[in-house]
Amino acid sequence: MTVQSFSFELQNRQGRARAGIFHTPHGDLPTPVFAPVGTQATVKAITPAQLTDLGANLILSNTYHLYLRPGDELIADMGGLHHFMNWQRPILTDSGGFQVFSLAEKRSIDDDGVTFKSHIDGSIKRLTPEKAIRIQEHLGADIIMVFDECASPYDRTHIEQAMQHTHSWAERCLDTKSRNDQALFGIIQGGIFPDLREQSARFITGLDFIGNAIGGLSVGETKAEMQTVLEIIDDILPEEKPRYLMGVGTPEDLINGVLRGVDIFDCVLPTRLARHNAAMTWQGGRLNLVNSSYTRDPLPIDGDCQCYTCQHFSRAYLRHLIMAREMLVATLLSIHNLYTLIQLVQYIRQAIIDERLDIFLQEYYQIKESMGIAPEI
Amino acid sequence: MTVQSFSFELQNRQGRARAGIFHTPHGDLPTPVFAPVGTQATVKAITPAQLTDLGANLILSNTYHLYLRPGDELIADMGGLHHFMNWQRPILTDSGGFQVFSLAEKRSIDDDGVTFKSHIDGSIKRLTPEKAIRIQEHLGADIIMVFDECASPYDRTHIEQAMQHTHSWAERCLDTKSRNDQALFGIIQGGIFPDLREQSARFITGLDFIGNAIGGLSVGETKAEMQTVLEIIDDILPEEKPRYLMGVGTPEDLINGVLRGVDIFDCVLPTRLARHNAAMTWQGGRLNLVNSSYTRDPLPIDGDCQCYTCQHFSRAYLRHLIMAREMLVATLLSIHNLYTLIQLVQYIRQAIIDERLDIFLQEYYQIKESMGIAPEI
Repeated sequence: MTVQSFSFELQNRQGRARAGIFHTPHGDLPTPVFAPVGTQATVKAITPAQLTDLGANLILSNTYHLYLRPGDELIADMGGLHHFMNWQRPILTDSGGFQVFSLAEKRSIDDDGVTFKSHIDGSIKRLTPEKAIRIQEHLGADIIMVFDECASPYDRTHIEQAMQHTHSWAERCLDTKSRNDQALFGIIQGGIFPDLREQSARFITGLDFIGNAIGGLSVGETKAEMQTVLEIIDDILPEEKPRYLMGVGTPEDLINGVLRGVDIFDCVLPTRLARHNAAMTWQGGRLNLVNSSYTRDPLPIDGDCQCYTCQHFSRAYLRHLIMAREMLVATLLSIHNLYTLIQLVQYIRQAIIDERLDIFLQEYYQIKESMGIAPEI
Repeated sequence: MTVQSFSFELQNRQGRARAGIFHTPHGDLPTPVFAPVGTQATVKAITPAQLTDLGANLILSNTYHLYLRPGDELIADMGGLHHFMNWQRPILTDSGGFQVFSLAEKRSIDDDGVTFKSHIDGSIKRLTPEKAIRIQEHLGADIIMVFDECASPYDRTHIEQAMQHTHSWAERCLDTKSRNDQALFGIIQGGIFPDLREQSARFITGLDFIGNAIGGLSVGETKAEMQTVLEIIDDILPEEKPRYLMGVGTPEDLINGVLRGVDIFDCVLPTRLARHNAAMTWQGGRLNLVNSSYTRDPLPIDGDCQCYTCQHFSRAYLRHLIMAREMLVATLLSIHNLYTLIQLVQYIRQAIIDERLDIFLQEYYQIKESMGIAPEI
């Protein structure tokens, strides 16, 4: 196996916000970056060609799902995940931890790992740190994650225990990892508790990871709590390594994350909303295209948007597709929603490089207010 | 309204087979041509950009469906069907006749037209020749159809009556038509009865249509019966007008149609099979990709196929998408199936121009036999 090197190049900072480039075996990743989610080795309803066209640089795929179906060994036999799903740019896989704790039935956790029932066929499965790494090595993503235990954000006793598992499993993941063309990220847990987050950040940054991820956020806590946690962690994380905020989020979440030092984001929100007929806007508003007010609306979703959908289709047409139950609407809305978030993050990135992030933010919130869109809380 | 001219240019003939160009207001249509079906103003699961990439020149959309939802007046208000669905090449609309007789509930037919219950909401609707033309003028397709009555292919008494309606309605459609940028085609009926088909062909060709369509085939009759009917009609139809065989078909149907003078085809088969996980081949074979033999198959559907799907994805990946119920598979199989039929017809067209249709056919049936694919009967 060829030894590939990863490196993270910081291009500029404005406050805590960072613009950089993460060099990976599948190309350079300008950061901050938003990654569409391709849970089952496909970003739902979108071809890789459409993903490339809408400007995606990084996608996330789920270890838990691929382990259960079609199986990581099958994907390895088919040449790895990049080849299997025909995505030649960087891929990130999570460790399966989050899904084991949110999707699987009948979990039993011990210090060594987790035994659970598959949500697909009820079969008994087991994930350990070693197994999670082996699966991710079969998949072959550029960025891979340690196996962690997730807890609800306010349950301090459970969070402390889960954090201990996460820390001990992080060390075992590092020991297990064998491929040099994959960057392993540690995951910081600790719920909404500042002391636990600080403890976790210090522990994880003490280990030899190529990047650091922040888990256990956007799971029910308030925006203010999320932001406090991000600031505590930002004070501890080393500047020279990329930071990944898992499972976030909305336009405001992305902005707030960047303002607190985050480089990488992923979220199912844009594609999930698309499949529920909702179009996102740059300012955080949402159009529910089922609404009868769009029946004869000749305008695109967003007149300023340069995506394929907004350049070619009216709200009236999109609503017609919804009423006629045509699956094309999931494709067209996914294209628009992903483009919106990717463009927003790219725009912020350029603002950081040009040192006009403050001006951007002022304008952004002015426009948002003038549109009557309430800030997220 | 600008007066646009249609003209049909015959480039070459080999036997009854014809290669030509049908000039329309939305561009030239090289014939023979296969039209994907976009029933509800979308070819299911495919964007117009993907349709263009896979080589589609003409698409068909359904008057019956668009009349019921979203309504032809809405589409007219939105700038017409081309603009509404973002398809700038030629469009053909059927008259609604076939759907009224196959989909609608509680039909009552009289000499003036048909009253029926909408299959969507049960509301009472009425179509007459005048109404069918008015709807199609609202939609604005390049090629439009007379309103006809369809009957089952063996019921002579009903066929005779339906043919009389079709003939009288054809005259009323001609009288009603007001737009010069639409080419109205007459429809020949008559089931499988040679004398009725001859009678219908003589009547319809006696009227001033820009092209002629053959209806009431591929509805349960044998292949031999279809071919006999096509030959009878070919002997009567004028050379200088395009001929359209409605709702056909399979690779062999297309070949057999071209060999009997047909220029234009449409069929839901490629996209419908795609949504049922079946991939078509040039030779008429089908791969049911659910089959477990494809679980670890690294090959594309067809190693010789140049479509986006075959160039980028394995059978193993497509099967995974099916098992994981990912809608992307409908898109990828629709692309492959449509590309296959469109390429086949384009290849035949070139063979007619190069006068090597006989060589093509010999090779085609040899390969088909060597692959163990039975001829259609």
